[in-house]
Amino acid sequence: MSFIAIADFEAALSMPVALDEAARNAAAARQAQLTKPAGSLGRLEEIALFFAGWQGREKPLLDHGRAVVFAGNHGVTVHGISAFPADVTAQMVANFQTGGAAINALAGAAGLELKVVALELDRPTADFTAAPAMSEAECLRALSKGAEAVNADLDVLIVGEMGIGNSTSAAALCARSFGGDAQTWVGPGTGVDAEGVRRKVAVVDAAMRFHADAPHTAFETLRRVGGREQAAMAGAVLRARQLRVPVILDGFICCSALAPLFLANPAVLSHCIAGHCSAEPGHARLLEKLGLAPLLNLGMRLGEGSGAAVAAALVRSALLAHARMATYREAGVASRG
Amino acid sequence: MSFIAIADFEAALSMPVALDEAARNAAAARQAQLTKPAGSLGRLEEIALFFAGWQGREKPLLDHGRAVVFAGNHGVTVHGISAFPADVTAQMVANFQTGGAAINALAGAAGLELKVVALELDRPTADFTAAPAMSEAECLRALSKGAEAVNADLDVLIVGEMGIGNSTSAAALCARSFGGDAQTWVGPGTGVDAEGVRRKVAVVDAAMRFHADAPHTAFETLRRVGGREQAAMAGAVLRARQLRVPVILDGFICCSALAPLFLANPAVLSHCIAGHCSAEPGHARLLEKLGLAPLLNLGMRLGEGSGAAVAAALVRSALLAHARMATYREAGVASRG
Repeated sequence: MSFIAIADFEAALSMPVALDEAARNAAAARQAQLTKPAGSLGRLEEIALFFAGWQGREKPLLDHGRAVVFAGNHGVTVHGISAFPADVTAQMVANFQTGGAAINALAGAAGLELKVVALELDRPTADFTAAPAMSEAECLRALSKGAEAVNADLDVLIVGEMGIGNSTSAAALCARSFGGDAQTWVGPGTGVDAEGVRRKVAVVDAAMRFHADAPHTAFETLRRVGGREQAAMAGAVLRARQLRVPVILDGFICCSALAPLFLANPAVLSHCIAGHCSAEPGHARLLEKLGLAPLLNLGMRLGEGSGAAVAAALVRSALLAHARMATYREAGVASRG
Repeated sequence: MSFIAIADFEAALSMPVALDEAARNAAAARQAQLTKPAGSLGRLEEIALFFAGWQGREKPLLDHGRAVVFAGNHGVTVHGISAFPADVTAQMVANFQTGGAAINALAGAAGLELKVVALELDRPTADFTAAPAMSEAECLRALSKGAEAVNADLDVLIVGEMGIGNSTSAAALCARSFGGDAQTWVGPGTGVDAEGVRRKVAVVDAAMRFHADAPHTAFETLRRVGGREQAAMAGAVLRARQLRVPVILDGFICCSALAPLFLANPAVLSHCIAGHCSAEPGHARLLEKLGLAPLLNLGMRLGEGSGAAVAAALVRSALLAHARMATYREAGVASRG
């Protein structure tokens, strides 16, 4: 799938896609016979049914999962809104490629392959306080790069990101999607101080004013205040939905990329579960708006897909329990007395 | 270590044991150089330092972890306090041995070996509303069985349990340790209805009255209202502490076994982290009393060590990130600007 025109994006956004009810029901019937009191595995049971429905089989597994890290640079960093210099985006891409980043270890621990997609790092997006971050063509290209990173044979997809400055564009995506003061959505990101947070708030406020009269469509919001990596994450999640590949969402930046899509069509995230709740204060608020309950709450705030990768290890456990446990009959165990 | 006399238990309980500060400090120094903003891996970072200190190495790992499931039968089941017949304890032990239970799959997913220790299943403990559940010799034997299941070379220990009726003895252990109405500590367990919960409350009330004048020592509380599997878990956790083997605690039953020990010496759980918070209502209260913050909160309530095994997969991810990530220098990444 490529997004050649805005109409392609709109079509993907409104496409009706449903999970496989028969597979989900078969999984539920199996679950009722496993050697444990009904419901006693809590959310592990929900996870098994969710993946059964989206993978279309009674015993879903994570044999072939993928984490994709999209990287982009942001013109808005001219306002001094990050604790790190913009060069770090490219340096971290090199670190992903040589295996030294957190996501390398965490994807490895969860048995996921890792794919790194650097998006025109030498051409930062425009400063979105004074122009759209991306042209229409640039945004469509980033969406397409996202879609291209997804294959139909994946058991699960994780989308992560790297982009110095992108917690500011994330706050802007949320503010433009859901309203609220800039302060509601701005946080310390990788670790700016109170003065840095004030600068981020000022940047988001300025962006809301500058783009106020532009159409409030998902596409315009994404291209005006999003980054290339955020557009790519949106494209990947749309493509995964079309292919019925379940997605584990990461933190604030990842979810911010989906906020404008959700606003246009809440069903667009039905194939997604929230891997974790980040320490970035806007994330809990955003998850609530998206109607998602996170699996983990560990105070993580790294990005890269790291929280989702930790959640993937948990999902793997849930699916193995569902697939491998014996039924009461197989084990010769008496059910309730 | 065997518990031949009560004095052996008392000695283990009060033994001063500390983690390896040098290893913990080395791990903290390493962590400060890894390619991520300081603190951005949240609790994963705490986990790495905790395991570094207890394993005594800068880069702790979970190469050789063990889950032990202790099983015991309970005389108190004569009062109709479980949703399952008492025969299920032995049937589930057979299920553990043939690999069909949740803990088999979950321990496998986390790379843990599984050991099953059945404790005189043909001799249930006495009905503790009318007698001590165990004689002194029986309790010492169960403590010793627990200690014997632990080896010095383990990277982590999980203690789980199976025992129809043991959420009632767990409530009794908590009520006798921390006080409070029986209702504070009684819950549905494997799934009794409101009437069943009332019967459990009545049983715990009766037990508190019957044993009121007995000494409130850890040993007397364990043997009077605990089960063999609970005494074994206590013995295993004491032995792990002596050997500096870190422990991931499971749910309500597991933690209840440690309540009387904690009351005698709060330092006795310094080598333990709480794997999860169970759906059994008393568990959140108990964790608060024990001063432990759970890693997971997934509505699980199965026992067997299942919640701790899911947490072990998460711990494995945390340790691999700590061990495998590159430093800023190694990766050529700029630290804060």
